[in-house]
Amino acid sequence: MSMPLSGVRILDLSVMIAGPISTLILADLGAEVIKIEKPGTGDGARGMPPHYYEGESAYFIAFNRNKKSIVLDLKSENGRNAFYELVKISDVVVDNYRPGVLEKLKIGYDTLNAINPRIISCSITGYGSTGPFKGRPAFDIAVQARGGIMSFTGEPGRQPVRMGVPMGDIGGGLFGSHGILAALYQREVTGRGQKVDISMLDCQIALLTYRGQYYLTAGEIAESLGTEHASVVPSRGFKTKTINIVIDCNLQRIFNEFCALAGVPEIARDPRFNSRDNRFANRKELYDLLEKLFMTKTGEEWLELLEDRIPIAPINTVDKALADPQILSRNMVPEVDYGNGKKHKIVGNPIKMSEIEREKFTPAPRLGENTGEILRELLHYSSEETEKLIGESH
Amino acid sequence: MSMPLSGVRILDLSVMIAGPISTLILADLGAEVIKIEKPGTGDGARGMPPHYYEGESAYFIAFNRNKKSIVLDLKSENGRNAFYELVKISDVVVDNYRPGVLEKLKIGYDTLNAINPRIISCSITGYGSTGPFKGRPAFDIAVQARGGIMSFTGEPGRQPVRMGVPMGDIGGGLFGSHGILAALYQREVTGRGQKVDISMLDCQIALLTYRGQYYLTAGEIAESLGTEHASVVPSRGFKTKTINIVIDCNLQRIFNEFCALAGVPEIARDPRFNSRDNRFANRKELYDLLEKLFMTKTGEEWLELLEDRIPIAPINTVDKALADPQILSRNMVPEVDYGNGKKHKIVGNPIKMSEIEREKFTPAPRLGENTGEILRELLHYSSEETEKLIGESH
Repeated sequence: MSMPLSGVRILDLSVMIAGPISTLILADLGAEVIKIEKPGTGDGARGMPPHYYEGESAYFIAFNRNKKSIVLDLKSENGRNAFYELVKISDVVVDNYRPGVLEKLKIGYDTLNAINPRIISCSITGYGSTGPFKGRPAFDIAVQARGGIMSFTGEPGRQPVRMGVPMGDIGGGLFGSHGILAALYQREVTGRGQKVDISMLDCQIALLTYRGQYYLTAGEIAESLGTEHASVVPSRGFKTKTINIVIDCNLQRIFNEFCALAGVPEIARDPRFNSRDNRFANRKELYDLLEKLFMTKTGEEWLELLEDRIPIAPINTVDKALADPQILSRNMVPEVDYGNGKKHKIVGNPIKMSEIEREKFTPAPRLGENTGEILRELLHYSSEETEKLIGESH
Repeated sequence: MSMPLSGVRILDLSVMIAGPISTLILADLGAEVIKIEKPGTGDGARGMPPHYYEGESAYFIAFNRNKKSIVLDLKSENGRNAFYELVKISDVVVDNYRPGVLEKLKIGYDTLNAINPRIISCSITGYGSTGPFKGRPAFDIAVQARGGIMSFTGEPGRQPVRMGVPMGDIGGGLFGSHGILAALYQREVTGRGQKVDISMLDCQIALLTYRGQYYLTAGEIAESLGTEHASVVPSRGFKTKTINIVIDCNLQRIFNEFCALAGVPEIARDPRFNSRDNRFANRKELYDLLEKLFMTKTGEEWLELLEDRIPIAPINTVDKALADPQILSRNMVPEVDYGNGKKHKIVGNPIKMSEIEREKFTPAPRLGENTGEILRELLHYSSEETEKLIGESH
């Protein structure tokens, strides 16, 4: 079965999240992703507490399905030579070492490019490979904070909070895989690989989007708005007799329809609320009315009444989100088969393409699970050479 | 100057954020993006309050640099025919209409594919083109809520909040552009286009990453942690004598180094804190100690002392984030030239690639700015035909 990235081979030196989520997406699209892991512990995510399945952490499972694992000691000559051999027959190398480390390991871009001019190298680091902070360490929380988004995520007037998912890492990963895909496409034209240099901090700046532009255009310093929106009214969470819900009626047509369905057509006609600009100017007055309105029914009743016509949703906890009939119908909670009679649910691939006839998910690999197979079958090492290298590095 | 996506032409029917951020990324990488806008208002983002520059909203400016704009009335025969002509000479069509609307406009995928079998169609919708909720409307806040992330973003024990940037929309856009890039790559092999079907809700599920996997593996329902982390200790925001900072010492090596530099080597040796698992188990005790420690110096002193070695950062407001020397050095706040002597700063492109010699940014287009040029130069309409169509639609 052909997949969008069939035939693309990726050597993945990265650990934790930013690099691995980038290659996870490419693996889901059909690339062959080979994790190159260090002897002993491998990717540090494997040991992240507190939840484990079949000996691997849930944290690791979340980012490493559909990949293979080979253990190589890149500090040894034999390990490095095996890596060079892999570079000859691969398309992409991904890493998230700090700038300079690749060169110290003698696997910097210039070296790889000399071995295989078609190789694409993508480095995803905290601050990128240039600039005054280039050597500094950073993790997700540091770029969420330095990049500004943390300062305006939270309740109004209270302390900032972190986005509930690691968007510092994920942002780096998602922009990194864009760079890889664009480089693969350009290579079809030029025949050459290239170097992609992703800074997680840059990615946070890109994610600022309109809240960054509001500052650059008008000097507005974004503040925390709870569940509210800087420009759209109404767009907010509300209490009901039961669960909490959210609603968004940005378009005039939708606001009118909401008021009609909710039995308050007079609100849509009220001169304080009858246009986007008027609702924006009279935010508090409208929210006072809507807070009372939503308390007149249960959340379930509001959803039943409105959900076919109005953007409305329950604030789901993660158990409910992962049981949502819509996402189940789109295979967003597939199972992987561990081959020992055990199946385990994972979070799926959101990129649905007509040329992907059937999504395929294999379990995150055990450390070094594919070392022998890769040395023998891809690099044509003899059994002796294979066992020697395994002996040196496992 | 050749860019990674030079020669790729994208017809962009989408509005607001999810579609436009997807084509924004592709435009930054060199694709020619033509916004097809409806007569009158065009993309509704153009009028989003409250900030404007040169007559366009800052909200619109944030997502539409490097693009062209043509006004076409797709409900008229002449407008639709011009669109068909564009499809013949384009590579990608992006939309965020609700499922069924494209077909009603007679520009559904089957029609486009019959006109140009190489065309790639990407629809980014709230819930996708299949499943029980497929026709329902959704905006950013609805998928942030239904998808679960909102429920665990916020302070512990308090109400959930929205991520400060529109990750519901942005998630849809970023996975959409992955699909487009993968389809462009696959077309080099197959010669055929395909359909990409993105659900913003699916994308939220994908972004759950390890916090979703913790539920699937162990039944843990993610809760709001403020600035803390579900698995890493220490990873949190702290008050100092002055500003608020964050710090993350996941790796043992880094935690040891932090304690040494901060003058508290005994903490690293304390049996409650001397391993990742022990810190995780004794989170509160460690945080009590660190809260006191960080109050002994100013934030600036802590940064000066630690930032070369330890992942630490100030919680920047957006003005400070956008003045950060690192991001300025990486051209993350470029200027666009409005040609009337006015220059305006925008948020830049985080995908740095060696084959992009010089980044280029042009202002977001005025509504229909390129209608005449596109009809005459790309479609070879006569001046008469061009003026007739402009008369019908402007």
